[in-house]
Amino acid sequence: MKKPFIHQDFLLQSEAAKKLYHNYSADQPIIDYHCHLPPQEIAEDKNFKNITKIWLDGDHYKWRAMRTCGVDEKFITGSASDKEKFLAWAKTVPKTLKNPLYHWTHMELKNPFGITEQLLNGDSAEKIWDKCNEMLQSPEFSTRGLLKQNNVKVVATTDDPTDKLEFHTQFNSEDEDAFKMVPTFRPDRGMEIENGDEWRGWVEKLAGVSGVNISSFSDFLKALKQRHDFFDEMGCRASDHGTDRPYSDDFKNEEIENIFLKVLSGKSPSNEETRKFKSAFLYHCGIMDAEKGWVYQLHVGAIRNNNSRMMKELGRDTGFDSIGDFDLAQPLAHLLNRLDSEDQLPKVILYNSNPRDNELMSTMIGNFQDGTVSGKLQHGPPWWFLDQKDGIEAHITSLSNMGVLSQLIGMTTDSRSFLSFPRHEYYRRVLCNILGDDVENGLIPDDLELVGSMVQDISYNNAASFFGF
Amino acid sequence: MKKPFIHQDFLLQSEAAKKLYHNYSADQPIIDYHCHLPPQEIAEDKNFKNITKIWLDGDHYKWRAMRTCGVDEKFITGSASDKEKFLAWAKTVPKTLKNPLYHWTHMELKNPFGITEQLLNGDSAEKIWDKCNEMLQSPEFSTRGLLKQNNVKVVATTDDPTDKLEFHTQFNSEDEDAFKMVPTFRPDRGMEIENGDEWRGWVEKLAGVSGVNISSFSDFLKALKQRHDFFDEMGCRASDHGTDRPYSDDFKNEEIENIFLKVLSGKSPSNEETRKFKSAFLYHCGIMDAEKGWVYQLHVGAIRNNNSRMMKELGRDTGFDSIGDFDLAQPLAHLLNRLDSEDQLPKVILYNSNPRDNELMSTMIGNFQDGTVSGKLQHGPPWWFLDQKDGIEAHITSLSNMGVLSQLIGMTTDSRSFLSFPRHEYYRRVLCNILGDDVENGLIPDDLELVGSMVQDISYNNAASFFGF
Amino acid sequence: MKKPFIHQDFLLQSEAAKKLYHNYSADQPIIDYHCHLPPQEIAEDKNFKNITKIWLDGDHYKWRAMRTCGVDEKFITGSASDKEKFLAWAKTVPKTLKNPLYHWTHMELKNPFGITEQLLNGDSAEKIWDKCNEMLQSPEFSTRGLLKQNNVKVVATTDDPTDKLEFHTQFNSEDEDAFKMVPTFRPDRGMEIENGDEWRGWVEKLAGVSGVNISSFSDFLKALKQRHDFFDEMGCRASDHGTDRPYSDDFKNEEIENIFLKVLSGKSPSNEETRKFKSAFLYHCGIMDAEKGWVYQLHVGAIRNNNSRMMKELGRDTGFDSIGDFDLAQPLAHLLNRLDSEDQLPKVILYNSNPRDNELMSTMIGNFQDGTVSGKLQHGPPWWFLDQKDGIEAHITSLSNMGVLSQLIGMTTDSRSFLSFPRHEYYRRVLCNILGDDVENGLIPDDLELVGSMVQDISYNNAASFFGF
Repeated sequence: MKKPFIHQDFLLQSEAAKKLYHNYSADQPIIDYHCHLPPQEIAEDKNFKNITKIWLDGDHYKWRAMRTCGVDEKFITGSASDKEKFLAWAKTVPKTLKNPLYHWTHMELKNPFGITEQLLNGDSAEKIWDKCNEMLQSPEFSTRGLLKQNNVKVVATTDDPTDKLEFHTQFNSEDEDAFKMVPTFRPDRGMEIENGDEWRGWVEKLAGVSGVNISSFSDFLKALKQRHDFFDEMGCRASDHGTDRPYSDDFKNEEIENIFLKVLSGKSPSNEETRKFKSAFLYHCGIMDAEKGWVYQLHVGAIRNNNSRMMKELGRDTGFDSIGDFDLAQPLAHLLNRLDSEDQLPKVILYNSNPRDNELMSTMIGNFQDGTVSGKLQHGPPWWFLDQKDGIEAHITSLSNMGVLSQLIGMTTDSRSFLSFPRHEYYRRVLCNILGDDVENGLIPDDLELVGSMVQDISYNNAASFFGF
Repeated sequence: MKKPFIHQDFLLQSEAAKKLYHNYSADQPIIDYHCHLPPQEIAEDKNFKNITKIWLDGDHYKWRAMRTCGVDEKFITGSASDKEKFLAWAKTVPKTLKNPLYHWTHMELKNPFGITEQLLNGDSAEKIWDKCNEMLQSPEFSTRGLLKQNNVKVVATTDDPTDKLEFHTQFNSEDEDAFKMVPTFRPDRGMEIENGDEWRGWVEKLAGVSGVNISSFSDFLKALKQRHDFFDEMGCRASDHGTDRPYSDDFKNEEIENIFLKVLSGKSPSNEETRKFKSAFLYHCGIMDAEKGWVYQLHVGAIRNNNSRMMKELGRDTGFDSIGDFDLAQPLAHLLNRLDSEDQLPKVILYNSNPRDNELMSTMIGNFQDGTVSGKLQHGPPWWFLDQKDGIEAHITSLSNMGVLSQLIGMTTDSRSFLSFPRHEYYRRVLCNILGDDVENGLIPDDLELVGSMVQDISYNNAASFFGF
Repeated sequence: MKKPFIHQDFLLQSEAAKKLYHNYSADQPIIDYHCHLPPQEIAEDKNFKNITKIWLDGDHYKWRAMRTCGVDEKFITGSASDKEKFLAWAKTVPKTLKNPLYHWTHMELKNPFGITEQLLNGDSAEKIWDKCNEMLQSPEFSTRGLLKQNNVKVVATTDDPTDKLEFHTQFNSEDEDAFKMVPTFRPDRGMEIENGDEWRGWVEKLAGVSGVNISSFSDFLKALKQRHDFFDEMGCRASDHGTDRPYSDDFKNEEIENIFLKVLSGKSPSNEETRKFKSAFLYHCGIMDAEKGWVYQLHVGAIRNNNSRMMKELGRDTGFDSIGDFDLAQPLAHLLNRLDSEDQLPKVILYNSNPRDNELMSTMIGNFQDGTVSGKLQHGPPWWFLDQKDGIEAHITSLSNMGVLSQLIGMTTDSRSFLSFPRHEYYRRVLCNILGDDVENGLIPDDLELVGSMVQDISYNNAASFFGF
């Protein structure tokens, strides 16, 4: 009988790779230190009505692929029924050969659904629809059930500072002992001063939730700090910042106060003022993180919401973003150096969107490693478009050559779906495959204990000690 | 006996690759949707006097290689005899090991000349010179004979809007039923407003051929539109634009009118005016293409004519161009978004010159896929310097991971030579080799019918339905 | 018994690769045309007190890795004893798996120390410390002994124009017949006009050593020229320039004179003035090189001294530099074209810091190849962060596809250490491995004499004729 497509040695192309994965990595727990899972759905331990709800709703990767294959928007985000949407996706799947979606789809059908004999396509769709939907009703397939099945120990959600974290509070009150759910401080809306009313609304909300009357930039910082303290109490160990480019223009405090007041009063900032404000914002967030021993995450380089027509129809994060080509080296060095010079450089993770910047990033972190913490600065794992076999290989190659791979904190899903945990398995298999090849080609010593211990560190140990959840 | 260098399984390194190529791709016809073959030579069904005339004249790839290897210009573009030039090239060939020229040279000696036992070098040159020259005199080696030998169904030439397309007319009048020759609308000279007299001369020529009296930018557009209509009648299904960077500055119609009049009256445009004019030009060409269901091709990122000394001696396209490093993401997104917002976005092919931009391009197209046409936006196949095994692999890898490979319209020669059709074979072999490897490594299912059908689509079917020639 | 990690076929993964390396490359002598070895230590034929002195002192690659792995600065550049520093490094080594340091470390322990049975780590450190230190006292392990052991024929040091080259003079007076030591003209300090006092100090020093009274830019050039002449007499055949970006702004001589006087008088140049001055400086250096038939080396694209805190503590070249992302194509083309237009273009080597620019560089050189010298313009071998297996492979791939590999002048160490010569072996093994793979996969002909002759040229012959030492 033919081996199923996703079999136990999927992606493992050498004996050494198989041993490394199965003996050193497969059983390691998961720390998903950056994702976009909704805290409410975890707190309420939700079950999903059907596979479209858990698998297609909100998955802009699948949506893009469907649009590219000529599927009508009705069957993607439109008025079609959940079942019609699933069938439309099933018919698209065979066309995604060589896209990571093809791998993820079948890995996710295997884990947790146990479907391995059939590939998803138009023919198998009905049967798979029925089978998955049935399973989704059982307790093992609730949000928490899925986290436990996947051996997740920590899940770090992504949260706005104005969020009251009521679902984190609810969750914490229950003494769930299988895993922790912690928030991440993501204040992008407060940085986006160019957004006018939206930004002013956010400042108002911040004032409300923090109890700080905000009539100056220093008030604004005080309010942010109040939330930072609160997030810390709730177990938060990291901030996260999504920007097109790294902002680190020179600025004076007085200038920032003036820009803040100008925009607060309803005026629009100039481009230069926007840059200065964002530079100050990123700087001050770094200082707050350093003070608490948090990790400062920077996701740079994407260009977002490129399609105005669809932005109006569907809003953000619906599949109309892409890879940018910004100048990164000097502003990043400048931002990190400013913090370091004042002895205020926190632990940092830099994520690049364009793979052409891998080497830049892998060397950038070396400029500020100071021996106080192993891997104090991290070149973050492949993100968004880069989260696929080739992207993972390119990142590992870059970091190995230009940094120190053994200090890497490993993968995170960055996902909005409760079915995405096999991406950790995917990452670990690719990692072990690379190292297995190297062993077999004599590029690293044939000492599986040595290499396996590095695998374990990257799979779990490094993240555990780096974040200190 | 030793296998010849170019044998039937050249580039096919797995059993799956061999089956995919031989069973699914080798017999597919060719649509050469972008090339620079001279229409006159096709219309007149020319035979070439010798192999230098058909193989070396105008081939700036070979010229560059010869210059790099220390060959005197006399033997490249100079006063040496055709035979001397051929000998100089033959002696250079062994030095080009690992350059695509080494592959192409021997693939082209095999097809159409049937030479496989000998590699081209100083020793074999005389014999090959004689053999090829003899064959070149037969009807099978006329321009049309060569197209037929190669199973070409459509050849799309590249033509200036001021061209009367008399050779296309002549060709069409003959009912050649083996293949079609269609023009492509390439109005670069009209966009290059910075060229002063050259540009004004072009505008005058455009006025003459279109019968439109041009005294304003809107007249200019009317005249362009007249040519666009005419090209459409002649079977044209695509425009093409070669620019260093994508231009999409904001502009007002009034501004463009003023810039147009200023330069028409003999003044030089400022850099900003040049950018605005080009932005308007590219925008209006997009609209014309959308109206007719044409394909809008954009070749961006090369820097051209870098060597002023040789530009004066030899003119354009003589081997002194190279890869640029322009910012692409934001201007491209802006240009495409402007057209899309007005519901005027045509089918598009984006070609990048710098391979570092592969991923940017593969994700850019996803921003505007709208489900109306499969693969409405295409990340065009490797072009110019990228047209080699590694370049093809990098493009396929990028597009597979970040777009949907199955929707790709496949290769085009972009060549000036009637001997370049084996590049389609080259491309297909590389494609099948990649997919064969994936099958053997379990990265895609071991289902050759499924994979083979994708190969057929990329080899021929997708281009056929995309262009609708 | 298990094969040692560094065995005779290390990195050679095919039979063809083994034959190419052992039969064609291994015995070729070495021309180390660009390195940072101290002339004094060669002139004085120094022996090193212990392995820390020769291996760790000044090796910022190792320092970065140690900092990344959480080693305290005390054990890197600080007050710890040499032995403690060695032990700290030894414990770090196993953590550098997959970094080139892991390869280099064990290649350097094999050659010259003959240590192959043990990998360096905390356990083996003591024994290796003792063994190496003992060997280092013998004459074979003096600086010259090491050069001879490694079959080095030429070592080109890197020297400031204000250097009196007294150690080169001393060395030349001795008739050392095993190898030549020649200087390289590296006038970066004279270009860095933005450095104020440091720059003025340099100009003063230049005046002193050249005997030219410098009160204008033309005096400055005259003084530089005097040193250029002197370096030429001392066997120098190349200049070298390290800049962040290639400077080639348009300038007028008068402007440069004014900028020169302004800064000489103690004022600070504007950014534009700095750019213009550097543009003029690089241009004039090119002319001097062209006049003498020298090679003009340009190392572009690094960003240096990013960590102000450590810059103050440790100074330059201590491990706080990284890869930049500058626009290169147009300024490089402009600089080279200006020289070429005036028939003053010397032989050139362009080195890029960011591997994303490999293809740009490999095609840039083609714009100015003129047939007068084989490989007149070179895309220099991988430098700094790129000097590792993947970096070498990427460079060879880029140059092969877009230039002419057979004309390449091969590797140079760019090192500050007398133990770095195995990097030539490393490079040659990687080169032979690539070519061996190509032979076995039918990508180049299975003709080892043909391929081997290219290997010999790249290993030694091309550099010998290119520089003409």
